[in-house]
Amino acid sequence: MDSKQFRKAATSAIDEIANYYDTIADRRVLSEVEPGYLKKLLPSGPPQEGEAWADIQKDIETKIVPGLTHWQSPKFMAFFPASSSFPAMLADMYSAAFTAPAFNWICSPAVTELETVVMDWLVKLINLPDCYLSTTHGGGVIQGSASEAIVTVMVAARDKYLRETTAGLTGLELEDAIAHKRSRIVALGSEAAHSSTQKAAQICGVRYRSVSITKADNFAMTGANLEKVLEECKAQGLEPFYLTTTMGTTNTCAVDDFATITEVLSRHAPPNVAGEVWVHVDAAYAGAALVCLEYQHLTATFDQFHSFDFNMHKWLLTNFDASCLFVRKRKDLIEALSISPTYLRNEFSERGLVTDYRDWQIPLGRRFRSLKIWFVLRSYGVKGMQEHIRKHVKWGEDFAKMIDSRKDLFHIITGPNYALTVFNVVSKADCKNEQDRLTKDVYELVNKRGDIYITSTVVSGTYAIRVVSSNPLAEEKYIRRAFEILVEATEEVRDGKVAKSPVVNGSVKNATGEGIAEAAMMTGHDV
Amino acid sequence: MDSKQFRKAATSAIDEIANYYDTIADRRVLSEVEPGYLKKLLPSGPPQEGEAWADIQKDIETKIVPGLTHWQSPKFMAFFPASSSFPAMLADMYSAAFTAPAFNWICSPAVTELETVVMDWLVKLINLPDCYLSTTHGGGVIQGSASEAIVTVMVAARDKYLRETTAGLTGLELEDAIAHKRSRIVALGSEAAHSSTQKAAQICGVRYRSVSITKADNFAMTGANLEKVLEECKAQGLEPFYLTTTMGTTNTCAVDDFATITEVLSRHAPPNVAGEVWVHVDAAYAGAALVCLEYQHLTATFDQFHSFDFNMHKWLLTNFDASCLFVRKRKDLIEALSISPTYLRNEFSERGLVTDYRDWQIPLGRRFRSLKIWFVLRSYGVKGMQEHIRKHVKWGEDFAKMIDSRKDLFHIITGPNYALTVFNVVSKADCKNEQDRLTKDVYELVNKRGDIYITSTVVSGTYAIRVVSSNPLAEEKYIRRAFEILVEATEEVRDGKVAKSPVVNGSVKNATGEGIAEAAMMTGHDV
Repeated sequence: MDSKQFRKAATSAIDEIANYYDTIADRRVLSEVEPGYLKKLLPSGPPQEGEAWADIQKDIETKIVPGLTHWQSPKFMAFFPASSSFPAMLADMYSAAFTAPAFNWICSPAVTELETVVMDWLVKLINLPDCYLSTTHGGGVIQGSASEAIVTVMVAARDKYLRETTAGLTGLELEDAIAHKRSRIVALGSEAAHSSTQKAAQICGVRYRSVSITKADNFAMTGANLEKVLEECKAQGLEPFYLTTTMGTTNTCAVDDFATITEVLSRHAPPNVAGEVWVHVDAAYAGAALVCLEYQHLTATFDQFHSFDFNMHKWLLTNFDASCLFVRKRKDLIEALSISPTYLRNEFSERGLVTDYRDWQIPLGRRFRSLKIWFVLRSYGVKGMQEHIRKHVKWGEDFAKMIDSRKDLFHIITGPNYALTVFNVVSKADCKNEQDRLTKDVYELVNKRGDIYITSTVVSGTYAIRVVSSNPLAEEKYIRRAFEILVEATEEVRDGKVAKSPVVNGSVKNATGEGIAEAAMMTGHDV
Repeated sequence: MDSKQFRKAATSAIDEIANYYDTIADRRVLSEVEPGYLKKLLPSGPPQEGEAWADIQKDIETKIVPGLTHWQSPKFMAFFPASSSFPAMLADMYSAAFTAPAFNWICSPAVTELETVVMDWLVKLINLPDCYLSTTHGGGVIQGSASEAIVTVMVAARDKYLRETTAGLTGLELEDAIAHKRSRIVALGSEAAHSSTQKAAQICGVRYRSVSITKADNFAMTGANLEKVLEECKAQGLEPFYLTTTMGTTNTCAVDDFATITEVLSRHAPPNVAGEVWVHVDAAYAGAALVCLEYQHLTATFDQFHSFDFNMHKWLLTNFDASCLFVRKRKDLIEALSISPTYLRNEFSERGLVTDYRDWQIPLGRRFRSLKIWFVLRSYGVKGMQEHIRKHVKWGEDFAKMIDSRKDLFHIITGPNYALTVFNVVSKADCKNEQDRLTKDVYELVNKRGDIYITSTVVSGTYAIRVVSSNPLAEEKYIRRAFEILVEATEEVRDGKVAKSPVVNGSVKNATGEGIAEAAMMTGHDV
């Protein structure tokens, strides 16, 4: 394909993509294919001779689109949103054109420098303390996902802890101390922390312990509950070195109690002293709300923490992947991830003149991701992004009011939090098991009909439905319609009433039941 | 930006991208900007109001392009290539449009299923043994980079080793055994293995040892040298659990001696027995050559190994990121990376009907990467890909012949291997130091002039120049010109002759010297 053919093919692709977005609301949001559908449609190996673009392109609509669950549909109210926006898509076109692994500065200065610039813009935009700026000792780096970010900072935290708590030892004594500590150190997160913290602990080869949460605390981790675990660990000879605290948990969008957590840690593992606990704020979804002044008080204690991550690819108009990780001390990352720390460290890097982002991440190579963040920040402006967030928060409140207006059918468990409402179905018998069963049946019927896509979860032992409508194409009318669909399904399941609106023909042949509830709990948030 | 505005903006972006490719050979390949150039050109924060697309777009050419090192230029002969192709770029446009984290099957069946299909196509295309097919116990997964792939398999190898060598132990005894083993297990790679193996060991928290290589073995790892290290480890109470073996090393594109390595391991750590050494084949660059029948004998022993990775984004016409990782037993990955193995494992997954790729990788979320592999395989066909590889191999041979034709100026250290030639400058004094100094001066002068971009390295203590021209826009005339440039620079540096061709005006103000040589050694290959 030469550049002339590319112009033609790309124009046709753009047309198809624009049409896809124009018609996305008319499509069934959840794919109906059966496992293995695609293999049956494709040959068993690549063709010997090259094929024409037209033949390839037509397979998109006929073979690929039927197997897509449409995350960009306004009817998608499951998990958390995965933003896309046209400016971000344009940026990714340039990024592909300029393709390069960009593992160090000279390999493409613009890739490194734009990243530094936009990450500093974001520090200001979301009111992170100045210590996260590249102009101080901190800085930001764009990771592929929030889970990758957690592995990255946990490695840094582990190595910093081992280094600082064995300072002064040498030779065999040092080796023994490190071997012993490796088996005793423990990473912490609340019960509601996303499972990626546990997975990161597996990858790092360290223990994991979770901190209890309660409904009374609105499912947030508190200092008091953290303190219990710190004391338990101490009693058992375990050494906590890392904590994930969450702004916007997967299940309920709870925000941990940063103030009491800070207070407890200042007594148990004082910051900036050897043996301190590295605190990472996982704000993957809700962190986007920090573009609005009314949420910015939440960052008050972050200068006591060590790292912060939020996904612009969730709620901030930027295509996957754009997970924005900020650290207070970039040297902690570099010490752990540089392949030869003393050798590569130099005046330029230390002064922030030249950054080699390969030392801030697990992989060496990296795409030109900052371009899409730059395009989005400029296309929407601060005001545009604030409007985007406030609109969804408002609609979330409206939705919760509607749910609350039918106390005969629904009970709100928590929310609305950052546009997410978590509720269950009220049983007539006032029986917990019956309530769980009904809620599950309603959830399954709604997804089976496929007019909207929602997720379920289990909160403090109670089966619940999660509804969050905050993707860029969300509209008030779809939220109102979602409420009606839920009412109809509940009346039908619980009371045997026939739905007023016609049932969409079609059944979900694949696992939409418990499987999805579990998937929601385990992976819906932190991608 | 609505879809109408997007159509217009995207058409204009496509036009600019096509023009960029049409004119790329006319641009200076290596960026000339100084550190910090971009920050001076941009405001200190995002704008309050959104900006128009036209204002954003014009900054691409004026502010970003000057800071790019043009990896797609035919004058780029440094590191290894980072492919791009128009079909892959088209696929990434669709991938952005369908944006989704796609962490499990139901979240977008097409994303998972196309990945399984194209990875199986690749197994057949590059003649991997059938055990790597998803239809047996293996399978492929698209990772972001070869370095990420190494961390992924090393975690699996570590956990498998610890599990299998402590089987039968329980309670405190098990805990102690694992703690002890964690401090004794060691990952291996040859001296020429890419540094990402060492970095992966840091991330996994395990030791790293390297196996010597010699010029006599053409810089490849041999079974005999591996055996020495295995015996040393045994004598020191260390337990090797993992080995990176390389097809196409960073410095010289050497291919390790798979046959003798297999033989040695069969004696020291028999395959399929508890305590076996996990062997990963890092074929990041050269693996692409396996599309040609004449290289396929190299995979003969791979059924004795555990995993294989090559980057289509290096030499096989696919935009970054497309690192293709294959494992012989997918359950080894899932055991290590699933957050709750027993819980998530089910008949569908085991039988390969439904794959949740989040359990095959470090991050949870993932882009729709298989689309570009599919488009590339179909657009070029098997024959097109073979031609692509053979063309570069042939030009590499031509280049080496040219270099060899000037024995008065150059000495070939090794190659051509997979289009890479490694050579140094011959000094009149027959003095090693003088030779190194001359080679370095020639290398620096060539990059300073910026008509081509090459990398230097140190091979067995000898300073050397690496030239590899195998990116999709490479042409014979640029290779011939590269030879002339090298001759002129060498005659000038060594003999004081004035170059026949006009010197390009401009100097490289940023670190192109030792810094790049080091970068080449450490990061050039495995991104």
